[in-house]
Amino acid sequence: MAVRFTVEARDAGTSARAGVLATERGSFRTPAFMPVGTAATVKGVWPDQLREMGYGCILGNTYHLYLRPGPERVRGQGGLHRFMGWDRLILTDSGGFQVFSLSALRKVTDEAVTFRSHIDGSLHALTPEVAVAVQEALGSDLRMVLDECVEYPAERKEVEEAVRRTTLWAQRSLAAATGTRGGMFGIVQGGMHADLRVRSAEEICSLPFQGFAVGGVSVGEGKELQRETVALTVPLLPAEKPRYLMGVGTPEDILFAVTRGVDLFDCVLPTRNARNGMMFTSTGPLSIKQARYADDPLPPDPRCDCPTCRSFSRAYLRHLYLQREMLASMAMTVHNLRYYARLMERAREAISRGSFGELVKESAISGVQ
Amino acid sequence: MAVRFTVEARDAGTSARAGVLATERGSFRTPAFMPVGTAATVKGVWPDQLREMGYGCILGNTYHLYLRPGPERVRGQGGLHRFMGWDRLILTDSGGFQVFSLSALRKVTDEAVTFRSHIDGSLHALTPEVAVAVQEALGSDLRMVLDECVEYPAERKEVEEAVRRTTLWAQRSLAAATGTRGGMFGIVQGGMHADLRVRSAEEICSLPFQGFAVGGVSVGEGKELQRETVALTVPLLPAEKPRYLMGVGTPEDILFAVTRGVDLFDCVLPTRNARNGMMFTSTGPLSIKQARYADDPLPPDPRCDCPTCRSFSRAYLRHLYLQREMLASMAMTVHNLRYYARLMERAREAISRGSFGELVKESAISGVQ
Repeated sequence: MAVRFTVEARDAGTSARAGVLATERGSFRTPAFMPVGTAATVKGVWPDQLREMGYGCILGNTYHLYLRPGPERVRGQGGLHRFMGWDRLILTDSGGFQVFSLSALRKVTDEAVTFRSHIDGSLHALTPEVAVAVQEALGSDLRMVLDECVEYPAERKEVEEAVRRTTLWAQRSLAAATGTRGGMFGIVQGGMHADLRVRSAEEICSLPFQGFAVGGVSVGEGKELQRETVALTVPLLPAEKPRYLMGVGTPEDILFAVTRGVDLFDCVLPTRNARNGMMFTSTGPLSIKQARYADDPLPPDPRCDCPTCRSFSRAYLRHLYLQREMLASMAMTVHNLRYYARLMERAREAISRGSFGELVKESAISGVQ
Repeated sequence: MAVRFTVEARDAGTSARAGVLATERGSFRTPAFMPVGTAATVKGVWPDQLREMGYGCILGNTYHLYLRPGPERVRGQGGLHRFMGWDRLILTDSGGFQVFSLSALRKVTDEAVTFRSHIDGSLHALTPEVAVAVQEALGSDLRMVLDECVEYPAERKEVEEAVRRTTLWAQRSLAAATGTRGGMFGIVQGGMHADLRVRSAEEICSLPFQGFAVGGVSVGEGKELQRETVALTVPLLPAEKPRYLMGVGTPEDILFAVTRGVDLFDCVLPTRNARNGMMFTSTGPLSIKQARYADDPLPPDPRCDCPTCRSFSRAYLRHLYLQREMLASMAMTVHNLRYYARLMERAREAISRGSFGELVKESAISGVQ
């Protein structure tokens, strides 16, 4: 396994850092946002458009791909990259998060998570070894260990048990790995309990992973608790390895986490919100369904350089949205993803200049969220 | 009004001709297919992609645009071209066909078609003058007169009445026109009755239209009757003006009509079929839902140059289709539209070489339909 991570710049006033994450397949600059491509497609977007927007890594959901079309089918097509026509990097999760959030009748033991498919009710057992094998069949570049993610709120005892099991599974995952390209990330759990976060970080970070993730946030704990947990956990992760905050989040949440030294992010927010008619703009969120936009000739964000803002008005996008035309989702997804890509570009530039704190302040003032 | 139509080549063995249709906005080569952009968007496709596929003219549906977002809203946005981000030509129909096929409680008199919106039941009156005014508000380049389109089968008396009314409305449409850019097309009706087609053609073609259309086909009459009607009607249209066969059709139907001297076509077939998982290929139709494609690594059509065939396999498209991913419709629409664009390119080349008959024969042999 080979992931090379180089920190190229450190911010002056915060713990933010800018770097490059490289694997055999290629490299991309961090801090970076990874669009979510659940079922081997980022919904409504052509792979070429993701490249043009500047994305170097996208995320695939192992749970969905495991159920449909199945890892062996993807392997038979030459792997996920070739299957979906994407030649840059792919990070896959372990499938665990969706098992916990989507499937029915799940039962967790040290051996496995047993669950029923949310599609057809079929019975499956996900073990750390299966999660590794499925991700290796998919051929992703960055692979996540199976962990136990606990909802919020939860009993301390339950969180403690999840920390223990997550470490056990992390060890088994490393033992099961046969892939030699890219690398595997460990995940720190511990809920909102400081001592359990410390314990989990110590255990996970002592293992030879290529990167480390903060898991178990964005599970209903709210913004303040999330920030506290991020602020506490991130400094516990090795500084020389990439750090990934899973499932976060809003532009504001991302900028905060970058100040604490996080390098990687993923979230469905830009893509899902786009399909619901909500766009991120330099002056705050814009809900296209509002009547005030019916005759508005301006682009969604006059300061944006995306294909949507170059060609389409708010009036047109509102019409498409109300008519449920595919182009509504397509165009607003491209806009939101370009917004996120540009946010990360600006973050990297500001860190390189040593003035990332100013960007965070400006963003707060201009209502970015 | 200004439409310049120049025939540049005539086929040796058929009545096919290749030419250029030019307006103030620009020009495109004929014979040409026009993708249908019902509600100010060709479903699932970016305007840039239509340009890249080689399309010079698309169709907008006046009925849909009249109801949503309304002609004044489009005019307020600078016209349909600017509204939808399309700078090449747009042909709009009169709205009549959709009134007859979609709306409820329609009542036809010489004065107007009164109908209820299929969306909200609101009452509207469409007159020849309104159809002209709406299309002028939309700012389309090529505009169609309101005609009365009769279903098949129909009583002779009913068809005769529609021919009379269509001529009356054609005269009123010309009188109502104030637009000075582009031009208006007359429409020949007459059902499947040879003498009524002749009568309608004589009446309509005596009027100073910029082009002429064969209407009232593709209304349930079947392939043979359609071909007979096309073969009978097209030679009655002025040879120096563009000829448009409305709502037709399959690649086979189009090639046949080109042999008879038709220049323009539109049809929902390539776009609608794509959304239903059916692709046109050089070896015949391909239905992506079939299990035989589950592990098929080939592109939809190995001889196709479209972005879909360059990047995606049948296995991947089938996966996307079964998962109801937007990219399924997007990719298959691009493929089918490029198929139609290339069919027309090949037709124009063959006509210029004087060997169009050979292309028609080859296409029949290779199973094009």
